[in-house]
Amino acid sequence: MQTVATIFSGNLRKNAKKVSNFTNWTRTIISTAGDIKRGPLPNYVAEEPDGPQIKTNIPGPRSLALKKELSYIQNSDAVVFFTDYDRSQGNYIADADGNLLLDLYMQIASLPLGYNHPRLHQALRDEHNAALFVNRPALAAYPPQQWIARVKSALMTLAPPGLNCVQTMSCGSCSVEYCQKSMFMLHQRRERGGLPPTDEEMQSCLINEPPGCPDLCILSFTNGLHGRTMGALSMTHAKWFHKLDSPQPKWPIAQFPKIRYPLHEFERENNAEVEKSLAEVEELIEKFNKLGRQVVGICIEPIQGEGGDNMATPYFYRALQRISKKYNISFMLDEIQTGCGGTGKMWAHEHFNLDEPPDLVSFSKKMLTGGFYFREHHMPQEPGRIFNTWVGDPSKVIMLEEVAKVIYEQDLLKQVEETGKYLISSLEEAQERFPNMLSRARGLGTFAAIDFKDAESRDYFIHKARNKGINTGGSGEKSLRFRPALILQKKHVNIFLDTLYSVVSDMK
Amino acid sequence: MQTVATIFSGNLRKNAKKVSNFTNWTRTIISTAGDIKRGPLPNYVAEEPDGPQIKTNIPGPRSLALKKELSYIQNSDAVVFFTDYDRSQGNYIADADGNLLLDLYMQIASLPLGYNHPRLHQALRDEHNAALFVNRPALAAYPPQQWIARVKSALMTLAPPGLNCVQTMSCGSCSVEYCQKSMFMLHQRRERGGLPPTDEEMQSCLINEPPGCPDLCILSFTNGLHGRTMGALSMTHAKWFHKLDSPQPKWPIAQFPKIRYPLHEFERENNAEVEKSLAEVEELIEKFNKLGRQVVGICIEPIQGEGGDNMATPYFYRALQRISKKYNISFMLDEIQTGCGGTGKMWAHEHFNLDEPPDLVSFSKKMLTGGFYFREHHMPQEPGRIFNTWVGDPSKVIMLEEVAKVIYEQDLLKQVEETGKYLISSLEEAQERFPNMLSRARGLGTFAAIDFKDAESRDYFIHKARNKGINTGGSGEKSLRFRPALILQKKHVNIFLDTLYSVVSDMK
Repeated sequence: MQTVATIFSGNLRKNAKKVSNFTNWTRTIISTAGDIKRGPLPNYVAEEPDGPQIKTNIPGPRSLALKKELSYIQNSDAVVFFTDYDRSQGNYIADADGNLLLDLYMQIASLPLGYNHPRLHQALRDEHNAALFVNRPALAAYPPQQWIARVKSALMTLAPPGLNCVQTMSCGSCSVEYCQKSMFMLHQRRERGGLPPTDEEMQSCLINEPPGCPDLCILSFTNGLHGRTMGALSMTHAKWFHKLDSPQPKWPIAQFPKIRYPLHEFERENNAEVEKSLAEVEELIEKFNKLGRQVVGICIEPIQGEGGDNMATPYFYRALQRISKKYNISFMLDEIQTGCGGTGKMWAHEHFNLDEPPDLVSFSKKMLTGGFYFREHHMPQEPGRIFNTWVGDPSKVIMLEEVAKVIYEQDLLKQVEETGKYLISSLEEAQERFPNMLSRARGLGTFAAIDFKDAESRDYFIHKARNKGINTGGSGEKSLRFRPALILQKKHVNIFLDTLYSVVSDMK
Repeated sequence: MQTVATIFSGNLRKNAKKVSNFTNWTRTIISTAGDIKRGPLPNYVAEEPDGPQIKTNIPGPRSLALKKELSYIQNSDAVVFFTDYDRSQGNYIADADGNLLLDLYMQIASLPLGYNHPRLHQALRDEHNAALFVNRPALAAYPPQQWIARVKSALMTLAPPGLNCVQTMSCGSCSVEYCQKSMFMLHQRRERGGLPPTDEEMQSCLINEPPGCPDLCILSFTNGLHGRTMGALSMTHAKWFHKLDSPQPKWPIAQFPKIRYPLHEFERENNAEVEKSLAEVEELIEKFNKLGRQVVGICIEPIQGEGGDNMATPYFYRALQRISKKYNISFMLDEIQTGCGGTGKMWAHEHFNLDEPPDLVSFSKKMLTGGFYFREHHMPQEPGRIFNTWVGDPSKVIMLEEVAKVIYEQDLLKQVEETGKYLISSLEEAQERFPNMLSRARGLGTFAAIDFKDAESRDYFIHKARNKGINTGGSGEKSLRFRPALILQKKHVNIFLDTLYSVVSDMK
């Protein structure tokens, strides 16, 4: 008997096959504006628009009305504009007022292939994936039979060199929190000489007391951002509104090196600054250890992507790893924002030429799923230690599998590297042209930034540029940050540069 | 010009319309076993199977091989079996070895409508939803233009009485963490008399120091489980492997009342036990406040769903809320496991006849998205205070919208109530039949439990029942917990009872 269901799926299969001959970035998608104004499907074929299309102020009247409506349900002050995800495509984001902006911010650095990539739509439409979108599993207890194959073709294909273990999580903060737990657990396992925990430990931990809950800590850096749950927040020192009013453990915080630009003029000063930070790291570890508050790890971003796009030198990271080896503690890189290709390498720490792989690398954002890679010695010894109901979402890994394929098929890392070189050299030119307004152009790949003379100028530029059809974001006190998708090309950079020159020319 | 894309979507639309005439639980789905063995689509029509179908030991050889393979990538000790989500349907879960089990555990209480509900497949296939599956937004900055409509028709439709505000999150732990932040923020806002934070507060919080990071705390209860990130974990006291080795703040922990069963025999003792707990709560608040460690809230589950299915009386919860009013602190109910209908009411606290709505209600699991409801006085006053990149996922809210419709259309809460009454009275009969083995049958709706004489017996039963085609889970030291989907019927309870009687008859 042929049911509606089989007719339905039969057609799906036939069409899925057709679509699969129709690869990559050659068409756009196929949907209406959702519940609000359903109508005929847009029939735009082929590429992105030639440039931004601006019809109203941004946010426009519709966004403003929606923002007000949302404010009765939750604080909506952070809303930039309401978005038409159906009509966004590639590097362009469409808003609820019919405007189309070149998006160099990409949902806070979290879309790897831009909007409505056809390969992701294809993965969504593939009936073989449907059950994993509809039935979200408790992954650590009842994994799908395809899970290992999915993990391998998505997460292990993208893994940093030398890191063969991975744990998925639902978001970035959780990824960092479970890295922290991994560091605490490894340290205590070593303290126990590999023996199982004692009854006293198992009982005391239930009431937050030692020896089960020992007074351990992790070293982090000024201006870092690692998340906003309590553990992740305890290592976050970027902006007051992330953490004000939360009780926080007193853990060691070292100064992130303050690098001066241009690099070739300040080599001596920068080296001294890096050495000063490294010395402080060692001093803090020894100080806390002497107090009986064992430091079990060092956690740092390869580039401080929220706290000012601060970069150190590759030497700094190599030296940090050597310090972690010296004290037999873990070295964790938080690549939530830097991971998945934005720096022109899959992982930013691949730029550092480390002696050996880091112990833990957290990810989220462009990876679509949260999680962390880890080295074998961080493998938990008991069940349920790294565990929660969902520990991630297979539907995100299905999408990531497609992202991985597109990155390799289209050699997107090379494109990021080339576009990034062009972007950063163009920013350097711009700061030579406007030395009183712009400085410190910097970055790796298209993970780039430039400073304005002050916060007010930076914020004014972001506002002006948005109204001319360029969506960007700030970082730290006065930096403008670039977090485009991996599909950004030189032509898009040129559109940005036109706006940069035109807006900054009028600024004082 | 008609492209492949429009042909594709045209067919989808036509078929979507056909499927939409084909409502509810009258057929099953439509997919193959995924990447591993693709083949012709199963053509099973209509209902679930008549009962479990067991072909191998559980876990079977294929699950065991996969479990070993996974162990090289991550600790896989918690895997029960690998699952065939394509062939699972309704109340039945299919494993990778061709077995089909009646599932009373439902992905740790997280699937509201069972497996492969046709209405969820329909929502997945609806082209108007596609862009929100493909482009995950930074929701607090660039919400979809349909977002408010979605929030209203899903989250606000299901909201607890009197709670008009809601914030989505990606998982349960984050939901609890941001409730904690809300409590800290409200307390400090009151301390400031509503004035904005001082420079000293904004600076000191960046280095984890007061006054920006004050020494506040939240009162929780023994055997509670609220999550496994550091803040949530600090209120979790259920099992050692959740928190061993983590440093934890010393916050007040009160004894959850130890209720004795049957209730009518122990009314006096139980009332005394409840009063003892309430007295301890007040003592702890006063003690901590005197130490300058202000208690800003009380957090508790309506039923302790992980730490032993411990239930208190409605009076206990009413009294707790009155204590929170007396001390002008927040009263938070963690309904991550109890929410969304499993107790026969949408929210378990609706059984308590509280004087007024709780201040905060956290959710996740069956709600498909994490998040929390809150009262207006918990609305943050500044942007970015309750914020992270994703703050949830609209694709989950799309699914929840469909869940809400099905719950109301099919009056599933009534079904849960009726099935639950039958389940619990049947458990009471069973414990009368096996008084040396079973005791303390209890629950609300189908959120039910029964105790075995010891942990070993409980674990033996779970293992034996699984091999006879019933999937269940443990809770606390020696309880068996029931967390079926909302679609469980009496006929399923009868299948379980057959197994219960047959296995327990052979146990000593």
